Amino acid sequence: MLLHLSTWAEIEQYLKRSRAIVVPIGSNEQHGPTGLLGTDWLCPEIIAREAQKSADILVAPTFNIGMAQHHLGFPGTISLRPSTFIAAIGDWIRSLAAHGFEKILFLNGHGGNIASIEAAFSEVYVEASFAKRHAGFAMKLANWWDLEGVGELAREQFPEGHGVHATPSEIAITQWAFPDAIKSADYSPKIAPSGPIREALDFRARYPDGRMGSDPAQASPEKGGELVRLAASSLVRELNAFANEPLPG
Amino acid sequence: MLLHLSTWAEIEQYLKRSRAIVVPIGSNEQHGPTGLLGTDWLCPEIIAREAQKSADILVAPTFNIGMAQHHLGFPGTISLRPSTFIAAIGDWIRSLAAHGFEKILFLNGHGGNIASIEAAFSEVYVEASFAKRHAGFAMKLANWWDLEGVGELAREQFPEGHGVHATPSEIAITQWAFPDAIKSADYSPKIAPSGPIREALDFRARYPDGRMGSDPAQASPEKGGELVRLAASSLVRELNAFANEPLPG
Amino acid sequence: MLLHLSTWAEIEQYLKRSRAIVVPIGSNEQHGPTGLLGTDWLCPEIIAREAQKSADILVAPTFNIGMAQHHLGFPGTISLRPSTFIAAIGDWIRSLAAHGFEKILFLNGHGGNIASIEAAFSEVYVEASFAKRHAGFAMKLANWWDLEGVGELAREQFPEGHGVHATPSEIAITQWAFPDAIKSADYSPKIAPSGPIREALDFRARYPDGRMGSDPAQASPEKGGELVRLAASSLVRELNAFANEPLPG
Amino acid sequence: MLLHLSTWAEIEQYLKRSRAIVVPIGSNEQHGPTGLLGTDWLCPEIIAREAQKSADILVAPTFNIGMAQHHLGFPGTISLRPSTFIAAIGDWIRSLAAHGFEKILFLNGHGGNIASIEAAFSEVYVEASFAKRHAGFAMKLANWWDLEGVGELAREQFPEGHGVHATPSEIAITQWAFPDAIKSADYSPKIAPSGPIREALDFRARYPDGRMGSDPAQASPEKGGELVRLAASSLVRELNAFANEPLPG
Amino acid sequence: MLLHLSTWAEIEQYLKRSRAIVVPIGSNEQHGPTGLLGTDWLCPEIIAREAQKSADILVAPTFNIGMAQHHLGFPGTISLRPSTFIAAIGDWIRSLAAHGFEKILFLNGHGGNIASIEAAFSEVYVEASFAKRHAGFAMKLANWWDLEGVGELAREQFPEGHGVHATPSEIAITQWAFPDAIKSADYSPKIAPSGPIREALDFRARYPDGRMGSDPAQASPEKGGELVRLAASSLVRELNAFANEPLPG
Amino acid sequence: MLLHLSTWAEIEQYLKRSRAIVVPIGSNEQHGPTGLLGTDWLCPEIIAREAQKSADILVAPTFNIGMAQHHLGFPGTISLRPSTFIAAIGDWIRSLAAHGFEKILFLNGHGGNIASIEAAFSEVYVEASFAKRHAGFAMKLANWWDLEGVGELAREQFPEGHGVHATPSEIAITQWAFPDAIKSADYSPKIAPSGPIREALDFRARYPDGRMGSDPAQASPEKGGELVRLAASSLVRELNAFANEPLPG
Repeated sequence: MLLHLSTWAEIEQYLKRSRAIVVPIGSNEQHGPTGLLGTDWLCPEIIAREAQKSADILVAPTFNIGMAQHHLGFPGTISLRPSTFIAAIGDWIRSLAAHGFEKILFLNGHGGNIASIEAAFSEVYVEASFAKRHAGFAMKLANWWDLEGVGELAREQFPEGHGVHATPSEIAITQWAFPDAIKSADYSPKIAPSGPIREALDFRARYPDGRMGSDPAQASPEKGGELVRLAASSLVRELNAFANEPLPG
Repeated sequence: MLLHLSTWAEIEQYLKRSRAIVVPIGSNEQHGPTGLLGTDWLCPEIIAREAQKSADILVAPTFNIGMAQHHLGFPGTISLRPSTFIAAIGDWIRSLAAHGFEKILFLNGHGGNIASIEAAFSEVYVEASFAKRHAGFAMKLANWWDLEGVGELAREQFPEGHGVHATPSEIAITQWAFPDAIKSADYSPKIAPSGPIREALDFRARYPDGRMGSDPAQASPEKGGELVRLAASSLVRELNAFANEPLPG
Repeated sequence: MLLHLSTWAEIEQYLKRSRAIVVPIGSNEQHGPTGLLGTDWLCPEIIAREAQKSADILVAPTFNIGMAQHHLGFPGTISLRPSTFIAAIGDWIRSLAAHGFEKILFLNGHGGNIASIEAAFSEVYVEASFAKRHAGFAMKLANWWDLEGVGELAREQFPEGHGVHATPSEIAITQWAFPDAIKSADYSPKIAPSGPIREALDFRARYPDGRMGSDPAQASPEKGGELVRLAASSLVRELNAFANEPLPG
Repeated sequence: MLLHLSTWAEIEQYLKRSRAIVVPIGSNEQHGPTGLLGTDWLCPEIIAREAQKSADILVAPTFNIGMAQHHLGFPGTISLRPSTFIAAIGDWIRSLAAHGFEKILFLNGHGGNIASIEAAFSEVYVEASFAKRHAGFAMKLANWWDLEGVGELAREQFPEGHGVHATPSEIAITQWAFPDAIKSADYSPKIAPSGPIREALDFRARYPDGRMGSDPAQASPEKGGELVRLAASSLVRELNAFANEPLPG
Repeated sequence: MLLHLSTWAEIEQYLKRSRAIVVPIGSNEQHGPTGLLGTDWLCPEIIAREAQKSADILVAPTFNIGMAQHHLGFPGTISLRPSTFIAAIGDWIRSLAAHGFEKILFLNGHGGNIASIEAAFSEVYVEASFAKRHAGFAMKLANWWDLEGVGELAREQFPEGHGVHATPSEIAITQWAFPDAIKSADYSPKIAPSGPIREALDFRARYPDGRMGSDPAQASPEKGGELVRLAASSLVRELNAFANEPLPG
Repeated sequence: MLLHLSTWAEIEQYLKRSRAIVVPIGSNEQHGPTGLLGTDWLCPEIIAREAQKSADILVAPTFNIGMAQHHLGFPGTISLRPSTFIAAIGDWIRSLAAHGFEKILFLNGHGGNIASIEAAFSEVYVEASFAKRHAGFAMKLANWWDLEGVGELAREQFPEGHGVHATPSEIAITQWAFPDAIKSADYSPKIAPSGPIREALDFRARYPDGRMGSDPAQASPEKGGELVRLAASSLVRELNAFANEPLPG
């Protein structure tokens, strides 16, 4: 069930049978010579929307702009400051909690988001902690590549040159979903360099075409489809387990 | 041209021929018994994506959560605080300006966003104003219903019961774009009441089914298609005029 | 009744007969070659103080610095950032609400304030909305030029060259109140240009003497007096209607 | 010279002969059974406006709402949070500095403002300090009761029962300026108690009529006039000395 | 009792016999040619830790970085912005209050902290004041040099050249506690200049070796020991008096 | 070299031979029935101070209060909100960078800090990224348990029941450094439970004595000494490698 294509009355009904929701969250940032700028928000959106086709789960609109300051040296990247990102995630959570959602799972598509998302959760919880009361709801961060079985499949598909940015697995997923937007380029070197992440100009100097440790040439729509189907079914299991956890207090 | 389905290198090329970009911006909030929760961000997204099919304009990802605090009494609404919204709009602008975009047009789908978007523009400009320097870029707010000819067409289509929230025109647009998600309900009263907007509980007490002044039963996919086509062509003209304005300094 | 010339005990008494208050709010900014820097906070102050002479209404101190970033290219302008302005309006409201004021009418004298004032109202209301409780108070924004009959009178007095900044109507009001501070200058062109509003240097380049679309030479103390008297009586009616509105919850 | 009754062109001229400005700053808060709510912003306004009658100094609009959280237990008090107050003072300073003002003297009328005003100065200076550059301007805080000779005169006028809040000296000044708004009451006890300052309810419990250590019955318009004249002439000297200080860098 | 060397269970026990705690707070900043960068946080830490050796009082970890923006022209200085400092003090207070501490005494070692600490207290209290409820706890600021008898002893020890920064008394205290870290230098001039405090470059230009008005050559470990012992016993008395004050509400 | 026991002139000298500094950073929070509240800031402080005894490295004062909201259910815990923590880390970095430090290594002692520290780094870098300039400095986060060889040693020392909070390794380190503050208790169960981390009351309900997955009874001062010596030498190597990395731009 897609929240944005539902009416408020349908959500009111849904809340009678479940208090759980999935929020796809990602980033809009450069993904090397061939990766789409939307890759990191498209992947969790694609997986979550696939998942809701065959399970009674609710998918929120996609939180599409995240913490991508290090990619700002490449045109098309849009980034929030961590402090803005934390405030915005907090307001999404406060809105959903006001309606009675008790389990909010953020399905994340960008490694650079992890720290700020976790900080955002703590920023929300601390209000309850200072006040010595129960929050009444809980959040969970799940990166799509950490869903059960997904990492194994990706390692099998791409035993070498998976890397950490503009990876063949994420590019394969977008190829599967947007076959008309498949791009090609000569990669040089074949496998991109690795190293630390600092500010945008430093990043572009270290990683001239935007890739980090990856060889995206290995991506294919078929491999993407395999990843999406596996991730979608793991997501449903993970969300159901989370939904069934008792909340103390 | 859709930014999220492009590579950074394609945007680098685009910037050589244009410094203008459209950002669809809306809200995810209740739209009465039959309106989709995503209506206000779907409408500008639909119009902007239609527009780029036949013109060389660039469309950013959609800013889908806005200022909808007054709708929080209805499940499914997600709202940013104005201060969060202003900070986030500012970071989008700073990101785009860092790449050299000089004309950023926000195509807005939610009346409740207008004040905060304008405040956000001033919050960005004031940095230049305090420092006595030129900003180097300019923003414009365009509500889709204010695009040339659109208001006239809507008044013609819906001479009575257009109202201001859950209007037949916005619902028609989503019907055209999402024919599988058309909902129906008995509206009572036929035309919803009008009045002031305050906090969420006050709103729900005044407007029990979420509509304000509107009779959405008049919506049809056909009327939606007419609105989209007209709005899309007006948007292209408005963006081009904006792109061609000289920037002092 | 002027709050600042009252004691706390007198306000305690007032609250037994009314829960409504008027806050004059404006801006301190350039008003062309002859307009006073204080014009935009003086006008609502003059009108509100006139109104309380013959009606039992309470007038707060004047909120005299608003959002005027675009005028910072002209000496004497003082501006808050929108975020500061929103925070400050919020604290005024929280203070007044703590005393039991339930209807807070901001009588505004500056168009550039409107967006930030409305955002500020939402920023206050959202606390109640996130918490699913009633606010217990309501705010209203009334621009003095929108008070009943005032626009009509101004159009009658100044059928041409009223414009939108450094208008003959606002200058007339300050002339009536401060006859010793009437300034004169040759205006060239007679009617100032119009256009968009961006950062301060852009503004000064477009509007070299500070006026926008106006011909202030038409102002006179007599016309100012007419405007003040009409606005004052309309304000009393508008405040009383607002005071009498029931608050749900 | 009163900034708010001047045009921008007059301020542009003034800046050619002086880079100094006085900003009256105070608070709107309860002042015991007979003190006006506006006392703390009226006093510096009265003194500064008196001073500019006979000296070529420039007086800004009055910053009339300060840090008065502890007085919120008494109706009519309006307070900013310290963080809001600091942000707002910063924006006033940034605005004035953008015009070339190099010496900004805040003439303060409220003891409870001192900490936040000094913190605000540091908040502005730290931007230059982090960036290892000169600020290019300087601020000074002057409480009107600390102006040369003023404390001595007040002690002479009120050897006993001066106290620290709702003092006879500040009430005398408002009596001189607003003879029509002189209030009377029986004070019991004659001299109010003293003690610490905490949150508003604690304050009202400790100081039931709002006074702290004072006997305002001793105030008279004549004594007020003496204080104003002395303070005004001391202010001119202090401002001139400040204006003449060289700025390093 | 040192909080950081205790277990949570020991603090739970302590709270059954006392609701008071001491927080040493200072700054890490240049202290002239011979003063330690840690002087201002070491002094209150040394005194508080000495005090708890012979009295059942609880000492929190030291808040070691304060508001020292004006010292940033000298290497080794670390400063918070006032706004950050205020937020952090607030979070310490909220944490301690959540455990039931009702009397929180900040033992301060840096004059430049005073304004921001007081602003921080008001920032915490205002939440209760806006909500018309009791805070349930109280804070007190005590500068170590203002503890009973300490100023007198310092004036006796250093009748001349005590000054206000890098004073012989604070340096003596660190000499007593860290005899291995005693430094020496030729001071020129013997007594440092005095003047205003602005941004960092201005400060370094006025006070080239970092001292203000002081002659630290007079410091000795013996004098430091005398000051510590006296301050420690005064601190215990002051804390006990504060602990015994009833809290209204 | 300990910064807080140095003079500014000594740091000025140090900066001529190195641009690197270590900042011990931790948290003050419950550590089970026997762990010290200071454990998480003491461990990195102990290791860093040990390291500087035999190497020419500079150690800053300890950042002793971190993000520990989930431990606030246990008395003695002090926590910053993530947003405050991020602001404070930013100000430390800005201060150190203003002096010319180019490599700032945070030696961390608390897992709960990691997200906020990384978010803080991005919050600082983004200023350079938005402005399209190089930062001029770089930060690194190193958890003491991740220093080369340390994890292996801990697993060897505590093959079972190491856990993630109140671990025998961190308790051993504080036992080695503070032998007079060794506490004992009966642990039940021997190995504490594991699970998710949410707000404070939830945490205390899940982990009644504060431990997570650990059996601290295995700690001993000797094992602590081994860990400290190994960690100290690894820290020196890691800092030197970081110091020698070239900075682009």
